[in-house]
Amino acid sequence: MVNDVKYADIRIGDTASFAKTISEADVYAFAGVSGDFNPIHVDAEFAKGTRFGQRIAHGILTGSLVSTVIGTGLPGKNTVYLSQEMKFLAPVFIGDTLKAEVKVVEKNDEKKILVLDTWVTNQHGRQVLSGQARVMKMEG
Amino acid sequence: MVNDVKYADIRIGDTASFAKTISEADVYAFAGVSGDFNPIHVDAEFAKGTRFGQRIAHGILTGSLVSTVIGTGLPGKNTVYLSQEMKFLAPVFIGDTLKAEVKVVEKNDEKKILVLDTWVTNQHGRQVLSGQARVMKMEG
Amino acid sequence: MVNDVKYADIRIGDTASFAKTISEADVYAFAGVSGDFNPIHVDAEFAKGTRFGQRIAHGILTGSLVSTVIGTGLPGKNTVYLSQEMKFLAPVFIGDTLKAEVKVVEKNDEKKILVLDTWVTNQHGRQVLSGQARVMKMEG
Amino acid sequence: MVNDVKYADIRIGDTASFAKTISEADVYAFAGVSGDFNPIHVDAEFAKGTRFGQRIAHGILTGSLVSTVIGTGLPGKNTVYLSQEMKFLAPVFIGDTLKAEVKVVEKNDEKKILVLDTWVTNQHGRQVLSGQARVMKMEG
Repeated sequence: MVNDVKYADIRIGDTASFAKTISEADVYAFAGVSGDFNPIHVDAEFAKGTRFGQRIAHGILTGSLVSTVIGTGLPGKNTVYLSQEMKFLAPVFIGDTLKAEVKVVEKNDEKKILVLDTWVTNQHGRQVLSGQARVMKMEG
Repeated sequence: MVNDVKYADIRIGDTASFAKTISEADVYAFAGVSGDFNPIHVDAEFAKGTRFGQRIAHGILTGSLVSTVIGTGLPGKNTVYLSQEMKFLAPVFIGDTLKAEVKVVEKNDEKKILVLDTWVTNQHGRQVLSGQARVMKMEG
Repeated sequence: MVNDVKYADIRIGDTASFAKTISEADVYAFAGVSGDFNPIHVDAEFAKGTRFGQRIAHGILTGSLVSTVIGTGLPGKNTVYLSQEMKFLAPVFIGDTLKAEVKVVEKNDEKKILVLDTWVTNQHGRQVLSGQARVMKMEG
Repeated sequence: MVNDVKYADIRIGDTASFAKTISEADVYAFAGVSGDFNPIHVDAEFAKGTRFGQRIAHGILTGSLVSTVIGTGLPGKNTVYLSQEMKFLAPVFIGDTLKAEVKVVEKNDEKKILVLDTWVTNQHGRQVLSGQARVMKMEG
């Protein structure tokens, strides 16, 4: 599903979300596309010996779910992504279920630019990512 | 190959890079993992009618190459990703060759935290992404 | 299709083959699984400046088609792969159509071991890989 | 990260390695690229009835990790792969962590050809692949 929310219909405080369980295949596909084969992501033996105790997902993979909310939910079509800040707050393990959320916190009507608070929470309710996005809605 | 650069050996000004041509398969795999099926990425007919004229890569896919430089090049192993800011400066088209680069700009010796300038350039020398990362090097 | 050719039915001189056009997606998936992001495979700008002039497929990707002939054609099911030698004779470019072939050259009846000549040819009739395989056929 | 080790800087005895846990997604992607759908790799019910008791990774998939060490680690960029021999010594199961290693054993200065011993070990320290590679380092 890809929404197409008009700029005029967006209110400060509007929210949208997207949730997905992160599979081993997701982590491996992400490594395969990005080239990031850091052993914490793809070497289970190495990961055992770290503070995390097991392989973790790439932070940017977690961040990509925010892109999904923006690109398919709010505002959806015809959105130009201007910037994204991400703080990685806690590790994401294979099998974790992540919920990415965005909330409109500013509107700049002249340029149709929106500022969105963005965050991702795991199945235990712990925030694993927080940040802010700036997007521009293209219309007519 | 994954480097393991010791914190003590890292100097302000050190750089590393990673380059890759972005294929259609990359964009589709990224859509498949993230769920971001915004038509600008996967609908060539839709894309024709936009300011870009063709499908573009996800901004976060471009950003993932920065993660690759950090996770496999500098500092490589045993790096904890704390934050990443990304400004998306220009569209990335299927077939573009991207070079992601990082440069150490600050060291915080107490916590072994590094601040890195991060940017991505296309084959025409145009910067398509700029930003900054904070990482912590874990060591025995 | 996966054959199950009985050891007793295999004759010296028997052959089998498998053909496929190598897509960019194949090369990128192979990089993504193996971790081999050497720029000759995934960086079109770099590849322009080399003797090859363009990106080439991984040699082992070419070799994997031999595995396909053995594992699905001759002898197919219940074959244990003991060894494979590969000489890489010429570059394989994205879009090339490869035909992998095997030919039985020796039978060791006591252990049900076969020696196979193996080679891969491109659409111009040029051999791009040659070598030899040893396999053991497992049977009830 | 892709190294670019100069021929003159390479010494007999130099080594490099790359490690990765083999996921089900890796085995399936490898089947999808190569076409090798032998049931021992992709049919769990069939595999139960074999000497292995479960699905195993393709031998050439294991071998591809050697290509990664050569193509990204030693010598890295500008390496032409001339040949690879592989003996498959033990089965690799989904979830095994493999470490591929290479060691320079011969240098032919006239043609800048290197001979490398190549082997892959699993998480139990058992060698699953051994062999030898010949590569040529291209330089200005």
